[in-house]
Amino acid sequence: MTKAFVTGAGGFIGSTLVDRLLAEGHQVVGYDNFSTGRMEFLAKALEHKNFRLVKADVLDPFALSEAIRGSEVVWHLSANADVRFGLEHPRKDLEQNAIATSNVLEAMRHNNVRDILFSSTGSVYGEATIFPTPEDAPFPTQTSLYATSKLAGEGLISSYCEGYGFRGVVFRFVSMLGERYTHGHVFDFVKHLLKEPTRLPVLGDGTQRKSYLYVGDCVEAMLKVQSKMPDGFDVYNLGADEYCTVRDSIGWITSLMGLYPKLEFTGGDRGWVGDNPFIFLDTKKIRAQGWNNRLTIRRGVELTVSWLLDNRDVLEA
Amino acid sequence: MTKAFVTGAGGFIGSTLVDRLLAEGHQVVGYDNFSTGRMEFLAKALEHKNFRLVKADVLDPFALSEAIRGSEVVWHLSANADVRFGLEHPRKDLEQNAIATSNVLEAMRHNNVRDILFSSTGSVYGEATIFPTPEDAPFPTQTSLYATSKLAGEGLISSYCEGYGFRGVVFRFVSMLGERYTHGHVFDFVKHLLKEPTRLPVLGDGTQRKSYLYVGDCVEAMLKVQSKMPDGFDVYNLGADEYCTVRDSIGWITSLMGLYPKLEFTGGDRGWVGDNPFIFLDTKKIRAQGWNNRLTIRRGVELTVSWLLDNRDVLEA
Repeated sequence: MTKAFVTGAGGFIGSTLVDRLLAEGHQVVGYDNFSTGRMEFLAKALEHKNFRLVKADVLDPFALSEAIRGSEVVWHLSANADVRFGLEHPRKDLEQNAIATSNVLEAMRHNNVRDILFSSTGSVYGEATIFPTPEDAPFPTQTSLYATSKLAGEGLISSYCEGYGFRGVVFRFVSMLGERYTHGHVFDFVKHLLKEPTRLPVLGDGTQRKSYLYVGDCVEAMLKVQSKMPDGFDVYNLGADEYCTVRDSIGWITSLMGLYPKLEFTGGDRGWVGDNPFIFLDTKKIRAQGWNNRLTIRRGVELTVSWLLDNRDVLEA
Repeated sequence: MTKAFVTGAGGFIGSTLVDRLLAEGHQVVGYDNFSTGRMEFLAKALEHKNFRLVKADVLDPFALSEAIRGSEVVWHLSANADVRFGLEHPRKDLEQNAIATSNVLEAMRHNNVRDILFSSTGSVYGEATIFPTPEDAPFPTQTSLYATSKLAGEGLISSYCEGYGFRGVVFRFVSMLGERYTHGHVFDFVKHLLKEPTRLPVLGDGTQRKSYLYVGDCVEAMLKVQSKMPDGFDVYNLGADEYCTVRDSIGWITSLMGLYPKLEFTGGDRGWVGDNPFIFLDTKKIRAQGWNNRLTIRRGVELTVSWLLDNRDVLEA
C-alpha cells in the first residue's frame, strides 16, 4: 500500500491509473485542473474512500506543494497533450511540460517525497533512424516543441536523481488507445464519420505507420516498474511489438461502424509539420521485467471505437 | 557584412566574438544584463562605430524584441554559466537557459529574423560511454540541471527550424580558456595561489580528465559555420583533439607562476555532484569544415594564467 499522488488524474491515462491504484488498495490523491481532464472519468474514484481530489493547476506552486504533502510516490502524468498544435502557441509546451515538471519536483523536494514516475513520449527520438527504436538510440534531433519539453522533463528528473537522491522512472509512450481516449486520429475519424458517413478526409497519404498500446496494458507496465523502483534513474519504452498504417486503422474503424466512406487524402508522408512519420519502439527492456501487452493494436482500435460510440458526449466536448 | 545580434555580449566568449565580428566589418548589436558579463570586455567594441550596446535582460521579452529588430543573424551566447551550483538554485538553469532561449526565438520569429547560432555544452552527453564523443552518441541521461536546460535550448531551436523555417546551429563546447576567462578551475587555482602560494586545495583526486579549447579557436570555428549556414538545423562539437588531467593543468599553472604548493585533494573521481568526470568530444565534423584549433590545451592554460596575472581586478570581482 502506498500513498500515491497522480497529476493529470482526470485524463485518459491518469484516470485509468487512479482506478487501478484504488483497486489494488493504494491511497490516491488526484490532482487536475480539468483543462482537458474530465470529472466523469473520476466518477468511480470519487466514490472510493481512499481517493481525494484536488482541483488545481501544476503551475500553482503553492497548491501543488500543499497537495503533495504526505505522498510517497508521484505519478506525474499531467501534460499539454495537444501535441499537434504546438506551433500555434509556442510557449505552451515549455510551460505545461517542462516548467510544470520542475514545479512537481520542487514540491516533492520541499516535502521530502522522492519517488517519481513520468509519462514521456516516443517522439523524443525525433526522426529515428533505428526501428524498433531502443532507449539508447543515437542522440536525436528534436522536431517538435512537445517532444523538446518532454525531454526537458526527463532531464530534470534524472538531474534530481543525480543531485538530490530521488528515484525516477521515465516512460516513453507510443500513442495510447482504449476507454476514455479523447484525442488522436481514431477520435477524429469516428467523430467525422458520425457526422458525415460517406467521406473521410485523411491528413497525409495514409501510409504513416503508427504503433499503439492499449491503455490498460500501459498501466500494468507502469505498476510493474513502480513495484521495483530503481535506486536512481531509469527509462523504459512502452509500446506494442507491432505497428499499423493509418489506412489499416481506417479499415478497422469503418468495418466496425459498418461504413464505406470515400477516403480523401491530403497527400504527403506525414500528417502535420513536426509529426513523426513513424514511431515504433523497441520494448525488450520492459518485457525483460515480465510484462507483455495483452491486446493487439487492432483490438485496441476496436475497443476505442466501441467506447466512443457508447460515450458520444465525449465526441461533442 | 551581416547585422549580427549577440546575447551575452559582455561575457567571455560573447565579447571575444563581438570584437572578431567588428574586425570583419559586421554591424553588431550586443545585448547583456551584465549580471556576469563585464563592461570592460566591451571597451574596444564601444569605441567602434558599428557597435551598439543594449543593456537588458533576455528574460524581458519587450526589450529583447525591440533590440533584435532589424538583425539578420543571432548569436545566442547568454546563459547561466554558473554550472557548478545548479543544485543550490534549481530553477535558475531552466529560466536563464531554456526560457531565455524560447524568448530569443520568439523575438526572432516576431521580427522575421531566422538565423540562430547557439552555445550549448558537451555536458549534454551526460556520462558518455564513447570517447571521443560524437554528435550522434547514444541517447544520454542528463545528470545536471545545466545540461538539461541547454539541451532544452537545443530542442527549441531545432523545433523552430522544423516548424518555422529557421536556420539553426548548435555548438556543443568543451570548457574554454583564454583572455577574459572568468570562472572555472584555472581561475580558482590562480586566485587561490595568489593569496596562499604554499598550498592548493583541489576538488576530487586530480585525475579528472578535461578537454579545453582556446576561445579564439572557438570563435573561428563558429564564424566558419555561420559563413555557410545549413538549410535547416545542424550540430557541431567544438573542442581540441586532446585532453589533460587536473594535475597536468596544476603543473602548468604553478610552473608559470614559479610556485611549488602542497596539493590537498578532497578525493573522489569528480569535483562535485553532477560534474562529468570526463568530457572529450569527437570533432571530426567541424574539422571536415576546414577548421583546426591552433593552440594546444597547455598553451591555452598558459595564456589564461598570463592574462589573469595581468588583470588581477577580474580575480577580485
